[in-house]
Amino acid sequence: VTAAEDPRITANRRAVYAATIRLLASTGISGLTVDRLADASGVSRSTIYRHWPDLGALAVAAFEEVLHRDPARPLAMPAHPETALLEYLRDYARRLNDDTYATILMSIIEWGWRDPAFAREHASIFDETRSRALAVLRAGSASGAFDHLLDHNEAVEAIVSPFLYRRLIRRRRITERDVRQLHAQLLVRFGSREAQDSAS
Amino acid sequence: VTAAEDPRITANRRAVYAATIRLLASTGISGLTVDRLADASGVSRSTIYRHWPDLGALAVAAFEEVLHRDPARPLAMPAHPETALLEYLRDYARRLNDDTYATILMSIIEWGWRDPAFAREHASIFDETRSRALAVLRAGSASGAFDHLLDHNEAVEAIVSPFLYRRLIRRRRITERDVRQLHAQLLVRFGSREAQDSAS
Repeated sequence: VTAAEDPRITANRRAVYAATIRLLASTGISGLTVDRLADASGVSRSTIYRHWPDLGALAVAAFEEVLHRDPARPLAMPAHPETALLEYLRDYARRLNDDTYATILMSIIEWGWRDPAFAREHASIFDETRSRALAVLRAGSASGAFDHLLDHNEAVEAIVSPFLYRRLIRRRRITERDVRQLHAQLLVRFGSREAQDSAS
Repeated sequence: VTAAEDPRITANRRAVYAATIRLLASTGISGLTVDRLADASGVSRSTIYRHWPDLGALAVAAFEEVLHRDPARPLAMPAHPETALLEYLRDYARRLNDDTYATILMSIIEWGWRDPAFAREHASIFDETRSRALAVLRAGSASGAFDHLLDHNEAVEAIVSPFLYRRLIRRRRITERDVRQLHAQLLVRFGSREAQDSAS
């Protein structure tokens, strides 16, 4: 339980986060300056300097808000690992299909290539995505639905890399057909009993 | 056969391309201005304006020089499609492992998200990479080494997406072990006789 936050601090943070997202989406990292943030948010420069001395950390924090603004995933994992994987892929596709999400994610990745300190900040974003995929995989291996010898690091890469490539690099939208095709491929690769049943 | 180029034009182009690469690698797209190019290349602003009115097209042209500066691939395709695929993967890993290549590729992809006109320019870079992978796949399907029902668009994605994800997004180096692992996985997926022989 955290203490109630000063409403003015909450209002400032919301305004600055929203301005950060707008600036990142329209002009990229180079457009993210304290002067522009102050203009776009209505929050004073001194307040921005005091609360967000590191604009890289601010970009990541604001992105996390976008990332989590519409949590479609239920808190409970579906009983069937195959279903949990399908829901994970569908939710991931939905996030990536959001233009603001994809544009800012690209900016953050590109920034990481230029600034190692920032790259450490940005790594946490992928850790979160990976940890949700890992939870699905662990549940599947534990229940015997997926091959118990499955290498989970390789499996996470197989889950996330096709959509990241298609969306971020090829700039295509991910369709429900794409989701179902990847799901079917992954079930085969993960040694799913369901995939074996449907093939026999 | 093209006419011999004025040596001064050649020298200017080389100087401007080299300066473009340096600016893109160190400061990204936002650092690519005619003033900075003139300072870094020693070529006059008026010459730069005249020859490269579009800095996006200049970035792509300069990147193509980096892309092609060390053509490791022999002109003749290896006789065995399995070997051709391994050489393709190894060459692709080598290019992606180059920090300058990877940094500028990220900048170009990120620019594409912000500027649709530029995105059309940048698409040609991936067409070239895809066309080389497609040539390997067509040779493999034609010779019967790979499944003749293989969907070549899906197969290209399976070839290029794991390394792009690992290198551009996770910022890991691609090792020879990575190359051999992906090669073995792809042979299985493409229905290679070699993969079936080694499994039996």
